[in-house]
Amino acid sequence: MLTFYFAPNTCALATHIALEEAGADYVAKRVDFAKAEQRSPAYLAINPKGRVPALATPEGVITETPALLVYIAQNHRQAELAPLDDPFAFAELQAFASYLASTVHVAHAHRPRGSRWADEPASLDDMKRKTPGNMRACFELIQHQLFRGPWAMGERYSVIDPYLFTLAGWLEGDGVDIAEFPVIADHHRRMAERASVKRALAGEA
Amino acid sequence: MLTFYFAPNTCALATHIALEEAGADYVAKRVDFAKAEQRSPAYLAINPKGRVPALATPEGVITETPALLVYIAQNHRQAELAPLDDPFAFAELQAFASYLASTVHVAHAHRPRGSRWADEPASLDDMKRKTPGNMRACFELIQHQLFRGPWAMGERYSVIDPYLFTLAGWLEGDGVDIAEFPVIADHHRRMAERASVKRALAGEA
Repeated sequence: MLTFYFAPNTCALATHIALEEAGADYVAKRVDFAKAEQRSPAYLAINPKGRVPALATPEGVITETPALLVYIAQNHRQAELAPLDDPFAFAELQAFASYLASTVHVAHAHRPRGSRWADEPASLDDMKRKTPGNMRACFELIQHQLFRGPWAMGERYSVIDPYLFTLAGWLEGDGVDIAEFPVIADHHRRMAERASVKRALAGEA
Repeated sequence: MLTFYFAPNTCALATHIALEEAGADYVAKRVDFAKAEQRSPAYLAINPKGRVPALATPEGVITETPALLVYIAQNHRQAELAPLDDPFAFAELQAFASYLASTVHVAHAHRPRGSRWADEPASLDDMKRKTPGNMRACFELIQHQLFRGPWAMGERYSVIDPYLFTLAGWLEGDGVDIAEFPVIADHHRRMAERASVKRALAGEA
């Protein structure tokens, strides 16, 4: 049994969908950000970073979306969520995940969470103004260079699909119309129709 | 044969050291940032992101440090640079790599490359002022929560060691004395003595 710690409207959704796709045996526990529960001693004992997602396994706790997605794929091989036996294809999947985590998620975070990196209100406003352009540049690169179609990595659905779906879902709030990227918009629509995605979203509502 | 694209004083050093540790058959090609070579059409054809590192393999190009480190470990299993047959231990390694890429590297980047996320000189100064505190918080967490000892992941040396060595090497420029973190300082000294690290640094000089 796995215990999955999440908060709604965070990148934890990617892992949540992957758990559903894998048919994993898990319980989902909501961390209440409104009560700053992620900073409570009880949660910090689970994840000292004070962030979500986190996955408590019988062997210990795993954090960081790219690590979680691959862990779920490795532990549910029957679901075929990653090319685990092809080191080059696996590296391409890992590179996509790493780009989403360290470039796209970070570009987005400068709008709602600029105070991580600067203190002055004028600096936070400056970051907010720059966020749409940065997100646009990221999705330009994703649509034209990284996305293979019909799924993110090509013919085979993989754990990158829920991760891309999650971050593309932030475009509107960042002031970017997803329709500017028709390939990504089509992927987003197809993802939203999947039973796994509906179950994960219902579990976070 | 692999072709490794790097620039000195970047995170590419982690991959460079890993290639040396693995005994990989590769040639290193320097991308001249002073001439903005990373933005040249020739380089963008290799890596459309216009960044380093990139590794050209017979199957295609791989980017992103966490992906590259695992790819090198998987393709040089005799070097035993990652716990490839233990999904939980592998997830812990992946989580460490992801934290270094998307939190620590990003915290650092706000000093030299704040213009990625804001435009006004005052905002960039604000980010620079906040960088030392953020790097301190990262290395506090690394020293007390993530680092196992004697190597990053415990008894076994892994690809996380060159990655941690590379980012810890940025502390001084970020205004943080590595001696504040004696465990990390000791790791850094031991890493600097390794033949692989000396060869990689010599190859970038």
